[in-house]
Amino acid sequence: MNEPTIDFEKGNGLVPVIVQDAADKTVLMLGYMNEEALQWTQQTGQLHLWSRSRRKLWLKGEQSGNHLLIKRLTLDCDGDALLAEVEPETGETPICHTGADTCFFTEL
Amino acid sequence: MNEPTIDFEKGNGLVPVIVQDAADKTVLMLGYMNEEALQWTQQTGQLHLWSRSRRKLWLKGEQSGNHLLIKRLTLDCDGDALLAEVEPETGETPICHTGADTCFFTEL
Repeated sequence: MNEPTIDFEKGNGLVPVIVQDAADKTVLMLGYMNEEALQWTQQTGQLHLWSRSRRKLWLKGEQSGNHLLIKRLTLDCDGDALLAEVEPETGETPICHTGADTCFFTEL
Repeated sequence: MNEPTIDFEKGNGLVPVIVQDAADKTVLMLGYMNEEALQWTQQTGQLHLWSRSRRKLWLKGEQSGNHLLIKRLTLDCDGDALLAEVEPETGETPICHTGADTCFFTEL
């Protein structure tokens, strides 16, 4: 089986990134990376995303200081999604802009 | 805080869906739903997606019989991503078309 390579084309230069707590496996948020965000993430070990609303590179936690350290980064079988397993650098857990521990809290 | 409502517009009619094993919290795959797939999912309790490659409604496991039962379905804080916590109906685990237990197996 050939290893998949990352496909930025399918999402117009962006790949969705599932962000998961490496310790307790909670899914924290879904973000997006462009190639630059991926390079910064790989070079620094800190999660960098592309902010679609602000249209800029976004070091997660750049304001709070609560950066997310990458423990494992995996690509899916068809190369169009990433999974980032992370650990909060400061040990604090608020991930969501609402102050919640995860962005997924509204049950349907 | 107002409850977010689901935003199909941002993704041109599709919302990304993180599929997670409800028991061991493994992230299994990333899929997409349109409104019809969400309605079928909510009505049947079985995960339905929109297949972007085949451009059709897709009952996950329609060929293998290994449907995924929804244990919990949550929307994120800004309404543009879903998290489906699932349980395999038959107890079998292959999720990926490669036969793997998860689509995320290529480490970067």
